[in-house]
Amino acid sequence: MAPTVEAGAEALLPAPPRGPLHEYRARASFNWRQLALFWDGEDMLRFKKSVFSALEGDPLFARSPGAALPLERYRELTFLRCKRVFEYNFLGAEDLLQSPLKVLALVHCLGMYDWSLAAKCLLHLLIFGSAVYNSGSERHFKYLQQIFSMEIFGCFALTELSHGSNTKAIRTTAHYDPATQEFIIHSPDFEAAKFWVGNMGKTATHAVVFAQLHTPDGRGHGLHSFVVQIRDPKTLLPMPGVMVGDIGRKLGQNGLDNGFAMFHKVRIPREDLLNRTGDVTPEGAYITPFKDVRQRFGASLGGLSWGRISIMGMAVVNLKLAVSIALRFSATRRQFGPTEEEEVPVLEYQVQQWRLLPYLAAAYALDHFSKSLFLDLVQLQQGLLGGDRSALQAELGREIHAVASGGKPLASWTAQRGIQECREACGGHGYLAVNRLGVLRDDNDPNCTYEGDNHVLLQQTSSFLLGLLRPAAPDGARFRSPLKTLDFLEAYPGILRQRFTGSAADWLDSAAPLAAYKWLVCYLLRESQQKLLQERASGRGDFAARSNCQVYHCRSLALAFMELTVVQRFHTYTHDAGVPTPLRAVLRRLSALYALWSLSQHTALLYRGGYFSGEQAGRSVEGAILDLCSQLKDDAVALVDVIAPPDFILDSPIGRADGELYRNLWGSVLQGRGVLERPSWWAEFSTRKPDPGGLRSKL
Amino acid sequence: MAPTVEAGAEALLPAPPRGPLHEYRARASFNWRQLALFWDGEDMLRFKKSVFSALEGDPLFARSPGAALPLERYRELTFLRCKRVFEYNFLGAEDLLQSPLKVLALVHCLGMYDWSLAAKCLLHLLIFGSAVYNSGSERHFKYLQQIFSMEIFGCFALTELSHGSNTKAIRTTAHYDPATQEFIIHSPDFEAAKFWVGNMGKTATHAVVFAQLHTPDGRGHGLHSFVVQIRDPKTLLPMPGVMVGDIGRKLGQNGLDNGFAMFHKVRIPREDLLNRTGDVTPEGAYITPFKDVRQRFGASLGGLSWGRISIMGMAVVNLKLAVSIALRFSATRRQFGPTEEEEVPVLEYQVQQWRLLPYLAAAYALDHFSKSLFLDLVQLQQGLLGGDRSALQAELGREIHAVASGGKPLASWTAQRGIQECREACGGHGYLAVNRLGVLRDDNDPNCTYEGDNHVLLQQTSSFLLGLLRPAAPDGARFRSPLKTLDFLEAYPGILRQRFTGSAADWLDSAAPLAAYKWLVCYLLRESQQKLLQERASGRGDFAARSNCQVYHCRSLALAFMELTVVQRFHTYTHDAGVPTPLRAVLRRLSALYALWSLSQHTALLYRGGYFSGEQAGRSVEGAILDLCSQLKDDAVALVDVIAPPDFILDSPIGRADGELYRNLWGSVLQGRGVLERPSWWAEFSTRKPDPGGLRSKL
Repeated sequence: MAPTVEAGAEALLPAPPRGPLHEYRARASFNWRQLALFWDGEDMLRFKKSVFSALEGDPLFARSPGAALPLERYRELTFLRCKRVFEYNFLGAEDLLQSPLKVLALVHCLGMYDWSLAAKCLLHLLIFGSAVYNSGSERHFKYLQQIFSMEIFGCFALTELSHGSNTKAIRTTAHYDPATQEFIIHSPDFEAAKFWVGNMGKTATHAVVFAQLHTPDGRGHGLHSFVVQIRDPKTLLPMPGVMVGDIGRKLGQNGLDNGFAMFHKVRIPREDLLNRTGDVTPEGAYITPFKDVRQRFGASLGGLSWGRISIMGMAVVNLKLAVSIALRFSATRRQFGPTEEEEVPVLEYQVQQWRLLPYLAAAYALDHFSKSLFLDLVQLQQGLLGGDRSALQAELGREIHAVASGGKPLASWTAQRGIQECREACGGHGYLAVNRLGVLRDDNDPNCTYEGDNHVLLQQTSSFLLGLLRPAAPDGARFRSPLKTLDFLEAYPGILRQRFTGSAADWLDSAAPLAAYKWLVCYLLRESQQKLLQERASGRGDFAARSNCQVYHCRSLALAFMELTVVQRFHTYTHDAGVPTPLRAVLRRLSALYALWSLSQHTALLYRGGYFSGEQAGRSVEGAILDLCSQLKDDAVALVDVIAPPDFILDSPIGRADGELYRNLWGSVLQGRGVLERPSWWAEFSTRKPDPGGLRSKL
Repeated sequence: MAPTVEAGAEALLPAPPRGPLHEYRARASFNWRQLALFWDGEDMLRFKKSVFSALEGDPLFARSPGAALPLERYRELTFLRCKRVFEYNFLGAEDLLQSPLKVLALVHCLGMYDWSLAAKCLLHLLIFGSAVYNSGSERHFKYLQQIFSMEIFGCFALTELSHGSNTKAIRTTAHYDPATQEFIIHSPDFEAAKFWVGNMGKTATHAVVFAQLHTPDGRGHGLHSFVVQIRDPKTLLPMPGVMVGDIGRKLGQNGLDNGFAMFHKVRIPREDLLNRTGDVTPEGAYITPFKDVRQRFGASLGGLSWGRISIMGMAVVNLKLAVSIALRFSATRRQFGPTEEEEVPVLEYQVQQWRLLPYLAAAYALDHFSKSLFLDLVQLQQGLLGGDRSALQAELGREIHAVASGGKPLASWTAQRGIQECREACGGHGYLAVNRLGVLRDDNDPNCTYEGDNHVLLQQTSSFLLGLLRPAAPDGARFRSPLKTLDFLEAYPGILRQRFTGSAADWLDSAAPLAAYKWLVCYLLRESQQKLLQERASGRGDFAARSNCQVYHCRSLALAFMELTVVQRFHTYTHDAGVPTPLRAVLRRLSALYALWSLSQHTALLYRGGYFSGEQAGRSVEGAILDLCSQLKDDAVALVDVIAPPDFILDSPIGRADGELYRNLWGSVLQGRGVLERPSWWAEFSTRKPDPGGLRSKL
């Protein structure tokens, strides 16, 4: 049946059940197993399968479709499941260091099941654990063992009620008292309460707390982090002086307990300062390997790229799940047709293809991007651990920081919009909780906000790009780009003279939109630079000048650059000689569709700057997008089969692999609690009739 | 203090509490009370105030901030509140006919409090009630009294599990049995179960059921509606043969019980056919005043404009609430600043202005539009009731249908996107349930789907427009446009030769974008017509040809036409001589900003079609949008004071009128249930530690 796929693949990737989706599957231009093996690799597929199977086979992970668990119960279940994940120990401690992609895959597998669970595990083990490991020193390693054994449970407390993005304005203080060799952690008022901290609401016993460090000589040394015990692990009652609680229900991820804490002169041992970037001697002297506060601050907030790249991956997972649901629905939902007797699947409509297929392409393109960028970051980290302090390493760090800062907004917004489109594309059934699109949207939403508000982050990317235009160094080298994201800038500003001279057919490959993107980014770079110079020349201070350049300049520049970077990587990947011949056509179509659809948001600028002229250029882009959609629609179900998790994990009646849309939905609805029962308060209807207007006199 | 405002206004519109928002209020260019009186009128303000005060003063309507009520309890509360609304009888029966704007206002007041409540009341009284009144005849008037006294409770059952948009494909049947003079209502299978029906889940005793009518002669007569009793009002138990239940949790509006029903040969009296458009004699003969099925079908689904225009209004209400919350937040939340000591309100940032102020302008423009279109519909209805069967009346009906069909998508999408932007613009605090942006988004979301999926509805509008291009009638009159929405077409196709020749300053008034919109709609009309002709010429059937013209042609045409129509109305309104002089500047800025911001989505087409040329045109549009935002930012808080309901109704700590962002939020969080308590399952943490890897062997 699949001669090009090695033996054993059928056991690893069993055939989807026959049913209404068979028609589309039979029309696919490629073998879905071959793509799955090419995309993920057999080892990774096996690993994911082992995780999924464990969850599906364990009653603790049983689904309660469509139900809104009471908050307390949901929190409890999430905690119990977190413990169970530790017991499964899907990855050994050695894997944590040696198989970084598997760590990522485990987070994604848990997230596909439920983001509250994934977040709970991640915050304790990777965020709290890494903070201790990376910001502390040997004297803190005792905590690592306690983290692994769950003797303590951790959280990461940076944000305060009144400050998030502006971390320098954090107001919690840590005064050192040499008499007792302790730090006194204090919240000056409730606006400085730690707030939003995941795991802090009900479960964390320890927190990495960021506070302004003061030494007895009266000097402030800026933000440092401390391990602070906030609850007694025996009783889960708060420690003296700590007021800790739950911030309440959020739009999503309610299995996770986000919390707040106020510290009333809480004393902690001197050794609990995480002292990688600065320490206090027993006598109270401040010592640091860094020359100035800014440099130290930068280093202490260093590992931000990890968070941002992780969030990109989470957003991509959500997008994959949503398009899987919406495309299987669209291939089986029939509505209207050429005659009153014959209805066609809504996927046959051009509008439905155009609404969904670009997001399917985006899921593939961004999945490739986030995974490959993650590996770049791993490489950076390995260099750092190996003691590489070269200029190239520093440039790699800056480049990754810029790309991670812009990639998070691009991925989280693409997912947010894509999930909403999927919800609407499923009509009313998309609005039913049991079909999961709402949960995906709500759980994805914070990806737009945490680890840096998207708009704030984009400024990191645009500032990086604008910085490259500064006068060349004496040796003539303007910049190096270890990730090659900046290579196109070699041609700047000459590239601005380029014009689109191709034909409509050229748009069917991603090379054409890639060339257009290079021109576009150079155009926006020039526009942004000129605008910034103008603003500064008009006498505004740097703060106002920068603020006034964001909307149509720096913001657009950062987004266009990120799209270019994603398009470039996916183009290179899909045009690589290593792609098996039977998969080339479909992967290149995905690459072209993502590239062109993204580019089409910028058509106005392409015309305005002269890259496009005449009506035909714009028309040909539109035509090519629709052509690519039409070419991909028969592959859509098979492409979903490659990225969709098992039905138990996907957890959506309208998105099940058998395509039995109505049977699955009907079955789920009938499983609702008390679905056919009259309400407990029925007597309110029948016995106490309202007295119409009876209260009118009260108005 | 406010010399131009009549006495008594201060009692009706009390001054907002002093606090952090005072700074912006003091900078406003106009008197907010004067605008409130001009916008709503004193009588309407008084009416709204009476409704709001009644709810605020009644413990049954007490808020439970941020809590997720259990489904059963939320349903019960919503039902009890619905009864209470009947007891308040805010509008007498006479108002229902004589003060249509007050009916609308009442729905909006209830919706501002909670859409589940508004929907529950509306579905029973106005949707079920109107269906009986408008589709029935005198023999059904007995039901109206029972509706008012709540002896029965109603729902409107059209959609089935497998069919929504394609209403003609509805499969429930009604066979007439002359032996007993009864209809036999039957669901052939579960895919034909009525589904999504609001009020049906737990409370409705009666349903207006749409079914295919068959007479004993074996002939089918198409879709008709019937009053079918589904539950016993004494017990709320289902009637024999009716399987009725709850479809379960939705993404929002969970106080409303949406349900399903399957009918197993349920017999109802012949008289319960709603016989306005067709009847069956006791002997079983079908009689109708209409000549053919299509005509009768059209008439029976006539009153669709009511639903669509109502939804526009609901979406606008949601947008108003969301921008009120986000703008008050933005005027008080400070983050970063020119120096480390001085932080500025985030509303001072260009990006934040650009994210929010266009939606504030949209709220005003669409509010005016939906109310004025509602009054047009009232006029149409009065004409129909008065027996007006003139051609003009028919043209008015078609024009309203086209504008209502396109207006619903425009308003619901604008609200959906605006609420999401507001949620993100409030950062993490926007993600906290207690601040209500999530509820607004979730409750608004179905506006994109029900009463016709947005994409399907847009086709009604574009088909109407394309129909106008047919050859002129013999008398030379191509069309009449009682609402004047089509007057610009007089200039078609000559208008296509127009070019933008103005200067940047012209964009600061809505006249310039209005002119551009007229060109744009004509351009899209020509493009769509040509595309349709091409598709047909290529041998595709009408169905495929139409489908292939949607994305970049008919869909864009319908949306651009709707934006033009809204812009036109708001431009006319804000430039009317009746606008008090002190309000002119701010209203015209809102008009210009909405117009230009909407238009800027189409810049690519303005260039492509030659209306724009050169870089300056595009730059000037961007510059003008930012200038208008900057001009409006000091008015934003006062503009919100005009449209925001009292704090109790708005129900958002970060959106309260006193602007005490953190005090309000902190106070709300501390009111959470068990916020400081350890979890009930604390022993799970302290006594049962996981055995790391203990289950590994099970993998």
